[in-house]
Amino acid sequence: MDQRISFLSLAVRDLEASRRFYVEGLGWTPDLEVEGDVVMIMVGEHVVLSLWDREHFQAEVGTIAEGDGVPPFTISHNVATEAEVDEVLATARAAGAEPVHEAQPREWGGYTGYFADPDGYRWEIATNPGPIGHKVLP
Amino acid sequence: MDQRISFLSLAVRDLEASRRFYVEGLGWTPDLEVEGDVVMIMVGEHVVLSLWDREHFQAEVGTIAEGDGVPPFTISHNVATEAEVDEVLATARAAGAEPVHEAQPREWGGYTGYFADPDGYRWEIATNPGPIGHKVLP
Repeated sequence: MDQRISFLSLAVRDLEASRRFYVEGLGWTPDLEVEGDVVMIMVGEHVVLSLWDREHFQAEVGTIAEGDGVPPFTISHNVATEAEVDEVLATARAAGAEPVHEAQPREWGGYTGYFADPDGYRWEIATNPGPIGHKVLP
Repeated sequence: MDQRISFLSLAVRDLEASRRFYVEGLGWTPDLEVEGDVVMIMVGEHVVLSLWDREHFQAEVGTIAEGDGVPPFTISHNVATEAEVDEVLATARAAGAEPVHEAQPREWGGYTGYFADPDGYRWEIATNPGPIGHKVLP
């Protein structure tokens, strides 16, 4: 099995609300849309972020676990400078993200903050001064 | 905000078990490891899959939602042929994946099956004959 991922698919409760957040709020461009079902956005050279209507998701994947708390994953978006981290968090807030946690220095040397998308999925906006941090910047 | 993702971080209950599955089972090579904390694996030109110890994850991100059912996201690994889909599912089974759902033709034209990693996170192994399917293949 090659060491790569092709799609990250998020189950979303309100596809239109998710579309508004990512497309109108963050300014991203969909590559493929199926009304009421899915919105697919290229987020890497060979990587797609797929916003998948929750009912369609459950019909194929299974009933989703419920409960209070945060989802068991985060998506990070890395940038080159601390000022850019703050700018992206401001963009997310303007797009309606709630909550937005202001960035802070981390013990491993980065500067990171989080925002939640309309389903509460956590995005970390980050600088990372280490070697792997350089590998993820285009 | 640029249209890209840098890291996908999964909260894992047993970092050693996850490491065995991805590194020894699937044969992937870590790029960065912090014992007891995190294992990072490059899964795209500028994309990292991060296996993050659940306690460390919760300390930074928050208490994880609990409940019966599947996690609210999937990761897809696309390949060029149906035979490769079956081969990757066999590799995952040999690596200890449970459950493994055999692949089947999908109404949108693909051929896909799923396996679960040690935390139950669902990986879809897929062909996709459409234009976006070509974009995600290296």
